[in-house]
Amino acid sequence: MNNNKASIQSTPLHTREGQGGGSFRTLADLYRSELLDRTIPFWLNKSQDTEFGGYFTCLDRDGSVYDTDKFIWLQGREVWMFSKLYNTVEPRQEWLDAAIQGAEFLRKYGHDGNFNWYFALDREGHPLVEPYNIFSYTFAVIAFGQLSIALKSAGQVELGEEYASIAKRTFDIVLSKTDNPKGKWSKASPGARALKTFDLPMILCNVALEIEPLLEPAFLQKAIDDCLHEVMDVFYRPELGLIVEALGKDGNLVDCFDGRKLNPGHAIEAMWFVMDLGKRLNRPELIKQAVDICLAEVEYGWDKEYDGIFYFMDRLGKPRHELEFDQKLWWVHLETLISLIKGYQLTGDQRCLDWFQRVHDYTWSHFRDPEYPEWYGYLNRQGEVLLPLKGGKWKGCFHVPRGLMNVWKILDDLASRS
Amino acid sequence: MNNNKASIQSTPLHTREGQGGGSFRTLADLYRSELLDRTIPFWLNKSQDTEFGGYFTCLDRDGSVYDTDKFIWLQGREVWMFSKLYNTVEPRQEWLDAAIQGAEFLRKYGHDGNFNWYFALDREGHPLVEPYNIFSYTFAVIAFGQLSIALKSAGQVELGEEYASIAKRTFDIVLSKTDNPKGKWSKASPGARALKTFDLPMILCNVALEIEPLLEPAFLQKAIDDCLHEVMDVFYRPELGLIVEALGKDGNLVDCFDGRKLNPGHAIEAMWFVMDLGKRLNRPELIKQAVDICLAEVEYGWDKEYDGIFYFMDRLGKPRHELEFDQKLWWVHLETLISLIKGYQLTGDQRCLDWFQRVHDYTWSHFRDPEYPEWYGYLNRQGEVLLPLKGGKWKGCFHVPRGLMNVWKILDDLASRS
Repeated sequence: MNNNKASIQSTPLHTREGQGGGSFRTLADLYRSELLDRTIPFWLNKSQDTEFGGYFTCLDRDGSVYDTDKFIWLQGREVWMFSKLYNTVEPRQEWLDAAIQGAEFLRKYGHDGNFNWYFALDREGHPLVEPYNIFSYTFAVIAFGQLSIALKSAGQVELGEEYASIAKRTFDIVLSKTDNPKGKWSKASPGARALKTFDLPMILCNVALEIEPLLEPAFLQKAIDDCLHEVMDVFYRPELGLIVEALGKDGNLVDCFDGRKLNPGHAIEAMWFVMDLGKRLNRPELIKQAVDICLAEVEYGWDKEYDGIFYFMDRLGKPRHELEFDQKLWWVHLETLISLIKGYQLTGDQRCLDWFQRVHDYTWSHFRDPEYPEWYGYLNRQGEVLLPLKGGKWKGCFHVPRGLMNVWKILDDLASRS
Repeated sequence: MNNNKASIQSTPLHTREGQGGGSFRTLADLYRSELLDRTIPFWLNKSQDTEFGGYFTCLDRDGSVYDTDKFIWLQGREVWMFSKLYNTVEPRQEWLDAAIQGAEFLRKYGHDGNFNWYFALDREGHPLVEPYNIFSYTFAVIAFGQLSIALKSAGQVELGEEYASIAKRTFDIVLSKTDNPKGKWSKASPGARALKTFDLPMILCNVALEIEPLLEPAFLQKAIDDCLHEVMDVFYRPELGLIVEALGKDGNLVDCFDGRKLNPGHAIEAMWFVMDLGKRLNRPELIKQAVDICLAEVEYGWDKEYDGIFYFMDRLGKPRHELEFDQKLWWVHLETLISLIKGYQLTGDQRCLDWFQRVHDYTWSHFRDPEYPEWYGYLNRQGEVLLPLKGGKWKGCFHVPRGLMNVWKILDDLASRS
């Protein structure tokens, strides 16, 4: 299906001399090129709305716009991506400009005046869907946080300070909502079986490090301790060896649809957030634990019949009501690549490298579109393309470029060590 | 895959002598037997919660309970189904008893005291999900309406009156909510692009006739006129030859995800509701219009590659965000069988009989489980079983038995005419 697959498969990493610098270098170049030569130009050229600001994310296979609504998750994530590239790859002006134009659209139209972030806007910026979703807020935090860092390094201190303030104020709102993220939009009956979900503490593990320079050290430490505790001591269940998506408020397993739900990609993604925290806190035992959980999740989530990692599973093997449960999604596989190669980088665990090769082969041969840039997002269980889109309501300029960037940088480090 | 398929396919209806009584009789017997010998005993024996009342609907392939939550849509629909059988097939006491025990559970626990019907309860009847969904109300209306008719014919006048009152009071609430069915649970921003959806007027076409004996004639007439107008003059779009799922409040087509959405099964189901109204109102031109729309929808929705009718489509051919869009669902195919055979019964249109045979063959060979009673609900695009369940959060004692009953009765009428 594409030449990259063949060239990688023909020289498996673990059979090369000393797992050496040569193959890591080749692979690093592959990821770098896919990021900088194909993926980022796609979003730069196809997604920016030069008329009304912000980004189109509903892009068809060739990048043509098929819907103009603007979803705050994806607006924030694209601002973050261009800012992160500027901060960690190189200070290209076009990346900074792209980030600022998205951020200005968000600043003007994305919230209600009090940094309550809508879920969706129309093309012109009129609100369509109310601020019911906490992740519209978290992605605004990392967007304005990363961009403020970029602006300060670019000498635009005043705008940087304004954006830093938006990030911090929004982060405060997120933390104030952790007990009841949906607020008045929750459909749970008062007093009913109350559940808490993995998604918010998991994302906060990442957000905390993303905006570290903006936070007081004691405040940061408290935020990190809280989310690490939730992820590793509460949602990770030693009796299952897995992370569950929802628990009773008392921290116990619950036998209902939500309480049985597993999302291996989610758990695996969280593990590289935890590895980053383990590195930052100098806690090798935390890194090792994250690596072990990551490997257990990959083993459990892998489809032994058709390959790839399932989207949703049931911890008791009961039928799911999410009809897409057996599909193979792009973000699951890109996040898995990050976790596995980061696990190898930080621990040298050979199992990580073996699984990385397997997931790499599947991902590149199934999600990558050899004809047009960016990758497919949705495959059926068998690995066939379900939707030809490159972006939509939930897929934007985020998991593919973030995954390529992270894996490239880690491979680059591994190559330079050899 | 099952013997029925072979026997039917070997003697296609349209090649039989005079499309005659013999083949209609054989087919009628097949549907009757599948209903009364397999499907209804399954629900009678497997779904009743003899401890706490109401029905389990999360039933695995063999009928074992895999989840005990109770969803009001499905509780109401099962009460309706047993009541309808009692009223239209024969007055079996076990059907009446099964309906009453479900209705008592609903009366005690299903609403907030003011006939605002919750979406879900736990096994014991504690509310889990608030009354955000208007169809919890509409299915309560037909449940208590049909059961009140059964009770009156069984001589239980007092309980019948009480249930009739619940049906009427709930129907009044439904009608008061037609402009804003989601109420405070709507996530639409005030003043944003406002849409109205096809589902409510479509269901009201059916509800009105279901509870006809409980309504004042003038009130009934007004309700029928309103929903018929919405379905046939507003949501049916002559420029497309199809029914759309959502329109602007002004009745215009809107180019957004919701405004592009087509649900062929929904449209086809609505057409047998309209045929019933056409018969009731003695309006043959309305019946003919419904038959033509039904045929257009079946043609449009049919998967030319793998057979079966798609779940969701996009009227502009753009990608959908519902990842289950290409799956084949049980209810779509059962409702299509009703509409096609009813269309033939009422108009003699040969196209209806030809399509009926084709959909019958697909449905019986793909959805019917030859090993255990009741049918599969969810197939992938290729027609393979996606989930082995016989009931769940959305599938209960409704579309399979209602479809079998309606088709049986119509085939019986066609056979007796020959």
